[in-house]
Amino acid sequence: MAQKPTIPKGTRDFTPIEVAKREYVIETIRQQFKRYGFNPIQTPSFENSETLMGKYGEEGDRLIFKILNSGDYLNPKKGAVSEEDYTKRDSTVLTKYISEKALRYDLTVPFARYVVQHRNEIEFPFKRYQIQPVWRADRPQKGRFREFYQCDADVVGSDSLWQEVNFIKLYDAAFTALNLQGVTIKINNRKILSGIAEVIGASDKLIDFTVALDKLDKIGEDGVKEEMLSKGITPEAIEKITPLFSLQGDASDKITKLRELLATSEEGIKGVEELEFILEAIKELPLETSLLDLDVTLARGLNYYTGAIFEVAAPDTVKMGSIGGGGRYDDLTGIFGLKGVSGVGISFGLDRIYLVLEELGLFPDTVASTSTVLFINFGDKEALYCLKAVTALRKKGVIAELYPDNAKMKKQMTYANRREIPYVVLAGTAEMESNTFKIKNMEEGTQNEISFDELTEFF
Amino acid sequence: MAQKPTIPKGTRDFTPIEVAKREYVIETIRQQFKRYGFNPIQTPSFENSETLMGKYGEEGDRLIFKILNSGDYLNPKKGAVSEEDYTKRDSTVLTKYISEKALRYDLTVPFARYVVQHRNEIEFPFKRYQIQPVWRADRPQKGRFREFYQCDADVVGSDSLWQEVNFIKLYDAAFTALNLQGVTIKINNRKILSGIAEVIGASDKLIDFTVALDKLDKIGEDGVKEEMLSKGITPEAIEKITPLFSLQGDASDKITKLRELLATSEEGIKGVEELEFILEAIKELPLETSLLDLDVTLARGLNYYTGAIFEVAAPDTVKMGSIGGGGRYDDLTGIFGLKGVSGVGISFGLDRIYLVLEELGLFPDTVASTSTVLFINFGDKEALYCLKAVTALRKKGVIAELYPDNAKMKKQMTYANRREIPYVVLAGTAEMESNTFKIKNMEEGTQNEISFDELTEFF
Repeated sequence: MAQKPTIPKGTRDFTPIEVAKREYVIETIRQQFKRYGFNPIQTPSFENSETLMGKYGEEGDRLIFKILNSGDYLNPKKGAVSEEDYTKRDSTVLTKYISEKALRYDLTVPFARYVVQHRNEIEFPFKRYQIQPVWRADRPQKGRFREFYQCDADVVGSDSLWQEVNFIKLYDAAFTALNLQGVTIKINNRKILSGIAEVIGASDKLIDFTVALDKLDKIGEDGVKEEMLSKGITPEAIEKITPLFSLQGDASDKITKLRELLATSEEGIKGVEELEFILEAIKELPLETSLLDLDVTLARGLNYYTGAIFEVAAPDTVKMGSIGGGGRYDDLTGIFGLKGVSGVGISFGLDRIYLVLEELGLFPDTVASTSTVLFINFGDKEALYCLKAVTALRKKGVIAELYPDNAKMKKQMTYANRREIPYVVLAGTAEMESNTFKIKNMEEGTQNEISFDELTEFF
Repeated sequence: MAQKPTIPKGTRDFTPIEVAKREYVIETIRQQFKRYGFNPIQTPSFENSETLMGKYGEEGDRLIFKILNSGDYLNPKKGAVSEEDYTKRDSTVLTKYISEKALRYDLTVPFARYVVQHRNEIEFPFKRYQIQPVWRADRPQKGRFREFYQCDADVVGSDSLWQEVNFIKLYDAAFTALNLQGVTIKINNRKILSGIAEVIGASDKLIDFTVALDKLDKIGEDGVKEEMLSKGITPEAIEKITPLFSLQGDASDKITKLRELLATSEEGIKGVEELEFILEAIKELPLETSLLDLDVTLARGLNYYTGAIFEVAAPDTVKMGSIGGGGRYDDLTGIFGLKGVSGVGISFGLDRIYLVLEELGLFPDTVASTSTVLFINFGDKEALYCLKAVTALRKKGVIAELYPDNAKMKKQMTYANRREIPYVVLAGTAEMESNTFKIKNMEEGTQNEISFDELTEFF
């Protein structure tokens, strides 16, 4: 036999049970998206290269999968690579000539492109959700794939903080619907981070500063201070922010302390007020099963988030990175020339949520819809007799099937067993004569003889 | 403003209403797939090039989208293009070096690859369905796209003709569920076509012969005869098959005539018997809304189909090509080294089915799940008051939303109107004091004041 075929590294085949579980997660989230008034859009898997390139930084550009132009792409013609450029034998130079399309790297940039392209048909504020695969030429590793789904919900065209409140409620509703109780929705605000940097006179070192602060959990207070020093943040500045390290208590305590710390920064105080608004609202609109945590060390997406920052952590009982994240970006569509449209959105990490549900045993038993009943095939006459019942059952929504071949009884029963089909119907000559069906409960091993009507009523 | 962004030719953005309609079609078909005992699998969007190349003929190879290798793909290293080959400046030569992955061209070859790769985990007969996009670098035209979905169901590992019977029932069930009545399921058998070619001594001209026969509808009997002559089929041979042109009557009449015509061809008679088995079974298991038609001119997929051939035509009231097709291929997995595994399957043409439903006005009115009720935003206090009701409604499954900004009343009402939201709730200071909500029926223009409990009961 030829060599066993394989799939590209970093990609996956999904077996029936895996598809069923993934669909369960996606459908549950989708239902909440809908309930919260979000509408679905879909964009093409590949975009023009110029739509994607330069939007994710240099590293991102490298990780975008490029599609080779069709046809004779080296043939000298208008726009083809010149002899001079070809001779350079430089991938970067050549790529521009031989590839003009690229696979979607995330859902946010295509969404921004969509909004600008369709702005005349869209009713703003526009609330959309999008659940589609994205592709990244990352080095594959445990839990990181080259093809994976993103589940995003965003609103564009509204500055209102009620959106942030809504997204927190939406996270809570979705995780509650997934029966995943006790997730922590962490919230921060870019303006608070900017405010802190401003207050300590390190505005030019915002990224270094937040990257260090973000490690508090892992390397502790001393570690963070050491790293800040090494990045050129002065001991006086570090002294000033020491209260951050012990920001304890409930949300109002934290707000009070932040207000003191940031008193001299207009931007910082704006951030505190925004956070306070959201926290107060959630106090009045309590979450069902999730916890809300003001976490000033949270610093994701600083290249684009301008207001709220969200991140969702799985319950403490499982070790897992964040299972969701999002934030507000004041100028989402500016990259495509439409200025002043604020956006805010969240994302669900499908693969990680899947792993968490698996680890905690939270997938419903009914998720894999195997057949409910298998009819044994004793030959063509019997098969036809059975198929009439199968047809009636399917019409009622029951998953029913006839074993396709008149194979040995043992083989057919093994098939039912391996596929965990709970009922088997046996109808041979005797049953056909008496117009009945023998039905066997595979778990209990019991058997009954029933009529056609009883059979269709049974399920 | 910058130039308006665009998407690659042959691709599409789907707006919320379009996504909703597509999902409706897909979900309806998916439900029938499940009911008939098919299980879902998913395969990666891209495969190793060697998995796809050479499987679809020369034209197919050309239409496969190739993905450029990541990183510095021209850099001299193991496996990189040699100086000699590079200097040839030949796309065909270069492609092998700079691209090792390609986008899926259909779902059948990846399915065959899947079956071979996972053969030890699979319980045969394996009934799988798969609904995923495929990509083809075809010249885009009306109704033909470079990215489109395929919806396939196949069984592998069973020779039983009951599979064919099941697929006809499945087609009927799916189109009935879509409320698309009166489709014609055409059926033929490759063995009959081979048999005819054999009987007239033109076995070496099977393709020419069937291509001509297939045009009977378009160019008439004389046209077909002329084309056959021009392809070197003798006048005597053509004389012999003249009965085919007037193959009228019900299925049993056709079977009787075919049996006469093909009496001397063992393969032909085998084909007639297979068809007869299927037609007899369907007589006993009548279709709900579809018609079954034995059509000996049906000749699709002759490169791979070895038995039954299916094609579904939309009702006569719409002009549309086939909206589904399929057949049996005796050696599906042979291309990957696993011999002797017979497969049979069908496919639904999502895009065309969509167009037919649109033209006939068959999409349910409820398909676009816009919000059921919009709460007007009169300011933060009122918003909070409203959000408590919104939360309660969402918990009950109602699609409810608060207008995000305290915008002018007119703007908020326009938003509700344009999005066709049927109910608007107005709750200002007065309502807050009396703990009520004013609810407005947007279609009738009527207004009521109701309590919180009445509101949540209302929907």
